[in-house]
Amino acid sequence: MADKNVYKPRPISGFPEWSPEVRRTEQRWIDTIRRVFESYGYGNLETPSVEELDVLLAKGETDKEIYTLQRLHEGDGDEGGEARLGLHYDLTVPFARYAAQHFGELVFPFKRYQIQRVWRGERPQEGRFREFYQCDVDVIDLNGVSLTFDAEMAEVAHAVLSTLGIGPFRLRLSNRKILQGYLAGLGVADVIPAIRLLDKLDKIGAEGVVEALQVQLGLAAETAQRCVALAEISSSDASFVEAVRVLGVENELIDEGLEELVFVIEALGHLPEGRVVADLSLARGFDYYTGTVYEGAFLDYSDFGSICSGGRYDDLAGSFINQHLPGVGISIGLTRIFSKLVAEERLDLSRFSPTDVLVVLPGEEVRAVAAGVAQTLRGRGFNVELYHEPTKIGKQLRYAARKEIPFVWFPPFKPGETVHEVKDMAAGVQAEADAETWTPGG
Amino acid sequence: MADKNVYKPRPISGFPEWSPEVRRTEQRWIDTIRRVFESYGYGNLETPSVEELDVLLAKGETDKEIYTLQRLHEGDGDEGGEARLGLHYDLTVPFARYAAQHFGELVFPFKRYQIQRVWRGERPQEGRFREFYQCDVDVIDLNGVSLTFDAEMAEVAHAVLSTLGIGPFRLRLSNRKILQGYLAGLGVADVIPAIRLLDKLDKIGAEGVVEALQVQLGLAAETAQRCVALAEISSSDASFVEAVRVLGVENELIDEGLEELVFVIEALGHLPEGRVVADLSLARGFDYYTGTVYEGAFLDYSDFGSICSGGRYDDLAGSFINQHLPGVGISIGLTRIFSKLVAEERLDLSRFSPTDVLVVLPGEEVRAVAAGVAQTLRGRGFNVELYHEPTKIGKQLRYAARKEIPFVWFPPFKPGETVHEVKDMAAGVQAEADAETWTPGG
Repeated sequence: MADKNVYKPRPISGFPEWSPEVRRTEQRWIDTIRRVFESYGYGNLETPSVEELDVLLAKGETDKEIYTLQRLHEGDGDEGGEARLGLHYDLTVPFARYAAQHFGELVFPFKRYQIQRVWRGERPQEGRFREFYQCDVDVIDLNGVSLTFDAEMAEVAHAVLSTLGIGPFRLRLSNRKILQGYLAGLGVADVIPAIRLLDKLDKIGAEGVVEALQVQLGLAAETAQRCVALAEISSSDASFVEAVRVLGVENELIDEGLEELVFVIEALGHLPEGRVVADLSLARGFDYYTGTVYEGAFLDYSDFGSICSGGRYDDLAGSFINQHLPGVGISIGLTRIFSKLVAEERLDLSRFSPTDVLVVLPGEEVRAVAAGVAQTLRGRGFNVELYHEPTKIGKQLRYAARKEIPFVWFPPFKPGETVHEVKDMAAGVQAEADAETWTPGG
Repeated sequence: MADKNVYKPRPISGFPEWSPEVRRTEQRWIDTIRRVFESYGYGNLETPSVEELDVLLAKGETDKEIYTLQRLHEGDGDEGGEARLGLHYDLTVPFARYAAQHFGELVFPFKRYQIQRVWRGERPQEGRFREFYQCDVDVIDLNGVSLTFDAEMAEVAHAVLSTLGIGPFRLRLSNRKILQGYLAGLGVADVIPAIRLLDKLDKIGAEGVVEALQVQLGLAAETAQRCVALAEISSSDASFVEAVRVLGVENELIDEGLEELVFVIEALGHLPEGRVVADLSLARGFDYYTGTVYEGAFLDYSDFGSICSGGRYDDLAGSFINQHLPGVGISIGLTRIFSKLVAEERLDLSRFSPTDVLVVLPGEEVRAVAAGVAQTLRGRGFNVELYHEPTKIGKQLRYAARKEIPFVWFPPFKPGETVHEVKDMAAGVQAEADAETWTPGG
């Protein structure tokens, strides 16, 4: 073929694209997540991909890199005075905006989930993308949210992750009141910097944190050690309470936080041992969350970081409405988790093609019969291809093999004949069959 | 509450957003479309929302208004030399780019579907959005695509539209070779402008078109009339052939076109009468398509325009690869159709909430029992909410009523009691039940 003037496209870094068989598995994941969310009575919301830039920035300068939109021929038309639009960088801002706009129509407690792509113009790296799916589930209420939901969020996230079969994982829970009250009780002034350092316990170890607390924040050695002693507490039952008590720090917030965390941990007592643990080092989103906080991680890939996270917040939509809308929610990093398992080749991949049965087309004179078989099988819920031309049977079989189609149907080769046969490609077995009653393996 | 500094968000014109109950129906539609596409063996592809601008513009200046992306803090970082990105304005360009990039991995005929949002920075109006779902199904092959697929595309589109239950609709089919050959046979030089005028037959009527052909293109009155005579031909069986023959215009292309269209129409003979018709006025995308063309429309809203369209094309990915990839495909305007039926209040809307059963929480002392019922019912596939606090039963029932939850479950109100009851909210009937065996209406 003559050389043409072609533009060779390059993959775009940070924008994942899967082959059809991987994509089928991703879609199966999305369906599963949806089903689990709905099984707890959460309703779906899908917002536009864009928000007004003023909405995206309403909480003040964001540290997320926002993509703004510009029409290619802008200024040609033109519609001046239109709001500048940006792609949403999370699903919380759109949910807050939606709740504010539709406040009067909501039934409280308002339970919603959202599974959509979000965009961030950041430098891509392992597990960090510029376009990715996030799966958020939240409940907001008018006058305080029942603590029941703090447990439900962890239960839902656990149900999602275990139903997906992502391998061993752990959900860590804490309550920010404990750490905050404890630091106050110890007389630590720089609460936020102290928490940031305690959050590094995993990475730099207890001694490293103790030293940093002294050097960077000027804490006394004993105070620094007591801080670390709290952060080191973790248990899968309510025994963390006793561990905190023996540290001897008194503060009302500690009591509140412990009581809440006990309620949540005990409500999750029916989950498999070790899947959900109270871990007082968890400091996730401390500036935003006000009570329970969550973070999930793979056990096999400890350096990979968070695979889901969330917590209880004081007010969702305060930037947009004169209403106080407290809530609790959790966000599952679908693309992060999925892409990691793709990279580790640990995904249970779908077949190459969705097709269950290829109906052979022996000749034009039996096309109507073959098409009828395909239609009957489709009506019974099978995915069926009718081979598109009456070519050699061997070629049709090779097509089925290359597409990993598990069954090949042979209609009668001549008009007037009535015997149909179906071949199980994996077993290599061929047997008589009736399209009205045939079942795989039956 | 004290007045806060709030930014009141406005709806963004052209970016549809549905309430959760409408959204549920939209999602059910998407699931249905997916299921129908897969039932014919088409595999799913999902491409990034963006393409390099050079890819979007590879076919030359597009008449679609493209949204380009810009990072808000661009220039801060900075990664110079990155390709400019734009949101895809259809699903054909991404498919072409994908096919070119993965050419070596594809199994031919390559059958794919794609259900994604696309973006166009155009002025919104009824049925025209800036962000909307499109559902494309295509097959491409190496050395010509079997005519079987021309029929299959119409069959798939018909299956989608009738399964969705969108009300009366019609798919019109033609073959561009007929009109092209006919005009050539008549000696009409300005083929494209003539076709554009013939395409207006519906709107300005036969006399209007005859006059325009004379005035604007200088055709003789008789030639103009013979053009219109062809465009007026339509039939739901192969009788259009005879109608063309009696017009007495001879051209090889006419014969080819008629033969192909007869094959397609006859292959669709099993569909309900009147749903699929040959209509020789159809001139859809004449500059792009090379054979069969399709267009679907509502019968009840004749001014609304196309609800699906497509056709056979000579080469998909020629801008990106030195390969000839002919194909045939059809695109279903999901958001167009859906939004019209929403506006006409003709949608069979879902319940307000996905929840099937609300389990009443009579008191903390029976929380474990109530939670156990919820878990058992979820395990059996029901969507279940456990009421979040042990408040008055009347309040819990009102919550169920407001959310249109069809069943309310009453666990025993005191520890030690064993009788469970379930109330059918619509029927107002309450009866004893067992979570392991209960079925709605059972």
